[in-house]
Amino acid sequence: MRSYYCGDVRSSHIGETVTLYGWVDRRRDHGFVIFLDMRDRSGTVQIVSDPERTPQSHPIAEHARNEYVLKVTGRVSQRPDESLNENLPTGQVEIYADEIEILSEVRKQLPFQVSLSDTESVKEELRLKYRYLDLRRERMRQNLMLRHEVTKAMRRFLEDEENFMEVETPILTRSTPEGARDYVLPSRVNPGDWYALPQSPQLFKQILMVSGFDRYYQVARCFRDEDLRADRQPEFTQLDMEMSFMDQDEIIDLNERLVAHIFKAVKGVDLPLPFPRLTYAEAMDRYGSDKPDTRYGMELADVSDVLEKSGFKVFSDAVKRGGIIKILPIPNGNDGISNVRIKPGGDLFREASEAGAKGLAYIRVREGGEIDTIGAIKDNLTDEQKAEIIKRTGAEAGHLLLFAAADTNTVNKTLDRLRQVIAKEMNLIDEDKLNLLWVTDFPMFEWNADEKRLEALHHPFTAPFPEDVDDLKTARAMAYDLVFNGFEVGGGSLRIYQPDLQAKVLETIGMSDEEANSKFGFLLEAFQYGTPPHGGIAYGLDRLVMLLAGEDSIRDAIAFPKTQQASCLLTDAPNHVDKKQLKELQVASTYKPKVKEEA
Amino acid sequence: MRSYYCGDVRSSHIGETVTLYGWVDRRRDHGFVIFLDMRDRSGTVQIVSDPERTPQSHPIAEHARNEYVLKVTGRVSQRPDESLNENLPTGQVEIYADEIEILSEVRKQLPFQVSLSDTESVKEELRLKYRYLDLRRERMRQNLMLRHEVTKAMRRFLEDEENFMEVETPILTRSTPEGARDYVLPSRVNPGDWYALPQSPQLFKQILMVSGFDRYYQVARCFRDEDLRADRQPEFTQLDMEMSFMDQDEIIDLNERLVAHIFKAVKGVDLPLPFPRLTYAEAMDRYGSDKPDTRYGMELADVSDVLEKSGFKVFSDAVKRGGIIKILPIPNGNDGISNVRIKPGGDLFREASEAGAKGLAYIRVREGGEIDTIGAIKDNLTDEQKAEIIKRTGAEAGHLLLFAAADTNTVNKTLDRLRQVIAKEMNLIDEDKLNLLWVTDFPMFEWNADEKRLEALHHPFTAPFPEDVDDLKTARAMAYDLVFNGFEVGGGSLRIYQPDLQAKVLETIGMSDEEANSKFGFLLEAFQYGTPPHGGIAYGLDRLVMLLAGEDSIRDAIAFPKTQQASCLLTDAPNHVDKKQLKELQVASTYKPKVKEEA
Repeated sequence: MRSYYCGDVRSSHIGETVTLYGWVDRRRDHGFVIFLDMRDRSGTVQIVSDPERTPQSHPIAEHARNEYVLKVTGRVSQRPDESLNENLPTGQVEIYADEIEILSEVRKQLPFQVSLSDTESVKEELRLKYRYLDLRRERMRQNLMLRHEVTKAMRRFLEDEENFMEVETPILTRSTPEGARDYVLPSRVNPGDWYALPQSPQLFKQILMVSGFDRYYQVARCFRDEDLRADRQPEFTQLDMEMSFMDQDEIIDLNERLVAHIFKAVKGVDLPLPFPRLTYAEAMDRYGSDKPDTRYGMELADVSDVLEKSGFKVFSDAVKRGGIIKILPIPNGNDGISNVRIKPGGDLFREASEAGAKGLAYIRVREGGEIDTIGAIKDNLTDEQKAEIIKRTGAEAGHLLLFAAADTNTVNKTLDRLRQVIAKEMNLIDEDKLNLLWVTDFPMFEWNADEKRLEALHHPFTAPFPEDVDDLKTARAMAYDLVFNGFEVGGGSLRIYQPDLQAKVLETIGMSDEEANSKFGFLLEAFQYGTPPHGGIAYGLDRLVMLLAGEDSIRDAIAFPKTQQASCLLTDAPNHVDKKQLKELQVASTYKPKVKEEA
Repeated sequence: MRSYYCGDVRSSHIGETVTLYGWVDRRRDHGFVIFLDMRDRSGTVQIVSDPERTPQSHPIAEHARNEYVLKVTGRVSQRPDESLNENLPTGQVEIYADEIEILSEVRKQLPFQVSLSDTESVKEELRLKYRYLDLRRERMRQNLMLRHEVTKAMRRFLEDEENFMEVETPILTRSTPEGARDYVLPSRVNPGDWYALPQSPQLFKQILMVSGFDRYYQVARCFRDEDLRADRQPEFTQLDMEMSFMDQDEIIDLNERLVAHIFKAVKGVDLPLPFPRLTYAEAMDRYGSDKPDTRYGMELADVSDVLEKSGFKVFSDAVKRGGIIKILPIPNGNDGISNVRIKPGGDLFREASEAGAKGLAYIRVREGGEIDTIGAIKDNLTDEQKAEIIKRTGAEAGHLLLFAAADTNTVNKTLDRLRQVIAKEMNLIDEDKLNLLWVTDFPMFEWNADEKRLEALHHPFTAPFPEDVDDLKTARAMAYDLVFNGFEVGGGSLRIYQPDLQAKVLETIGMSDEEANSKFGFLLEAFQYGTPPHGGIAYGLDRLVMLLAGEDSIRDAIAFPKTQQASCLLTDAPNHVDKKQLKELQVASTYKPKVKEEA
């Protein structure tokens, strides 16, 4: 039986004979003495074998190689002074191996080095294919343990402090109205019919509120068949919660304590409560984003009123068309950012274009408040306008001011993007900061220009502000997003629980009764039988762990992730299926692989 | 803000003004005073309103009806002596309602009564369609809370006592080799390819062991597209565990402590440890089953050697053909079980037939050891044989002995089935008993007569007994099932971790290298890079909760179960999918609904 994990052996165990199991992290053959760093989930410990003190084990230690699996029995000893290692929890001790048993060998060339001491950067493709080796490495080992600790902290808080109940909701179910593409699978028992995998447990958790389970949670697997971006996965995990009889402030308060509990548990930090709150309008105004990164400044300044009558037509025309003019002020921007980068062909111009802007105007602020820009702008600015621009942006000598003038969306999108790119480039981000804030008071609806109709910004079960119900089209929603260092990590809302109001909201987004009944008639029906006021929230667990781990990719927060091609390089999923099975399911693939033409 | 849950108000709160939320469980109008039992997740409390003491709330209380949702503010008062209710935790108090607010009404006729006080038996179809109302009723409320407590107890034990780590494994993956039918779904991004939903995390948890996460657990959703029986669901939940560096006894010991912890947490009982163990051979011999219910006796007696030379050809022929003869002894069976029931056309005959037997022989034991049976048997029994039969079965006057003579499988299946049916009928089952036992030493393989090959009894990663490896065909497996009152609630094994042995086992079941590599080549490959000895177990959570709740159907242990037709009556899943979506997935249904012929 194992005495201890490798990483847990300490000076207090000196003199004990222990049995340890693990992998050879590194083998150092000093000619006479062999040192093996033996590794398990907890860390490493040094095993020593030499022909004089441990003659039995020495031939075996000679045979052992990196990543062999060993069972070692030996005496815990004090390391000699010259080999103490203060950086290692087990750095005071070493184990003289009376017996070593090789439980398993490595029979092939390792595709990459696993050792803790190795800092080799390995291609992600290789890491995913040999995930079992990648998961042995320090980085992924830490990430998965962090994920476990985060999940555990969530559960403990909700169960022990707040009386939440875990309920499992189905994976084989119907389409949920989140608006993304569903994964669907054919039913053999009901041929012609299909199950959908849930995009979230939204409908079920509302049904649970109608059922009276007034504090529900689940660490729930969700599925969206979307075109994948760096931080998206076909399947992802959310901490899903729903509560009855609580108002927005009560829900936010509970969730702040939850988040603080998690950060305390896994980071040891005390987050100051309450978190700041920004309304959606304020966030868009100041940052051009509903998930602003507030670890650095560079807040946007709206100068539409100042420049609407400017002789520079790019400015005045934008306002005339109902758009706006905003400035991103960049302290010391004159040093690092050349005109070439801002003009067509430059990298910042390209960022702006990709965000939809036709171009960028700029002003460079010089000593004594002098400004430097293209003639067409300079010639058309009055002194009052100049002064107002300086005032609103707080610009000082060295400031670069980037202007976007277009419709509101484009301006915000452009300057938000530039703000992030430049903050990164100029090292303005304090990586030690943990900035959490709520964004609230979202609009209920946004205009879908393609379909020429309003659509729900969150989902159609979100409750409007009570004082806004008379004009739903412009109503604000009782919705709240939690933003962490510029990423949305959680989002929720109060829900509609009144059948009449629910009907009105569905009407506003142009959904017919028939469509509504076919999609979630069971929920509308449930609302007829005594429904409590309720609301909830869901956290993206993968993203939260990614951020807490300091990773850039969500794949590094997941044990067995899919690539951006939605495939698993370890198991080679998805893959072919027997024709026999498809026949039994009464489905067929209509895909015709393109035959390559002969050269 | 809510002051307390309804069921938590106590005498110690008398004098407080409290705010409570809940559903009207029952409204009693005493002409002048109105009593409302208000219910939430925790229980009920009595609300009182009368025109004199609470004139403000009385008109609203008059309007309230069953299942309305209320907010009540009022003073906690001592009940008058004559209305104290000792059976109710809140039976000492009542709330004089200063204010009542109706948050939500019932707008339709309730399809069935919800009230705690109601004992109406509701058709399951109706319960599943209106699951949100069914979940408000006491029975399902208790079952879901029990499920939550069981899950919580599992997690706490594994995390706090045994250093297990939770790791999530994929739902969108490849076929797993459990042998049942997979659910598959088409990949849009990789047209022509399909994902499979996992039948268990078996391969991933073994990969995690190779990765060094040596104690893994997950409360995992699993999927099998099987023809459904009463205790099967298309998706089900298992507590899934895997451990490295532990032998079978260590794994069993840890799991006994886990199970004892769960039973203590949810039932308050101390299970005696260790649990009894039976080998597979012993279990089959004594009970004809590998999941015997030991809450009652009626152990089988093998009399093949006694009767192999009997003149009664049914007996002697069975043995001649390699079969056996066994007896199910039924104490007092002569009273309740007539010959008519045993003979063709009788219910016990039918049970035997369904188990594969051609018929049942019987002997009735009378006073003084006399026996009573058909002439053909009686005439062919010697006194020695009679005496030996009486001795082996321990039969006394009143005993009915049922004989099955056929191949071993059929005999065991038949008598196991009869033993269960008769124990139930004769009330031999002590419902208070909690009998847990391990069945061990399963055979590695069983003969698949259809495919004319050996197949793995558990799965092909199960390790054989080390001393049996030289003759794998007849080897015993290091496998162990946990049986609770006659149900298998958990099953596991040590796994093969040596590539050579794994190859031999796959060869034994006739799997080609090509097939093995295509199905789980990644696991075989992983075994090349240093694999620890490992083993695991999985518990069927739904079934365990069902048994702990005293329910007969697994559906009563699940919030949103599917019917035996694999459909959800609440959401009406599975259902149609837009043609557009199938086109995008490049799949088509080949199902042609049968057109009914015109009359």
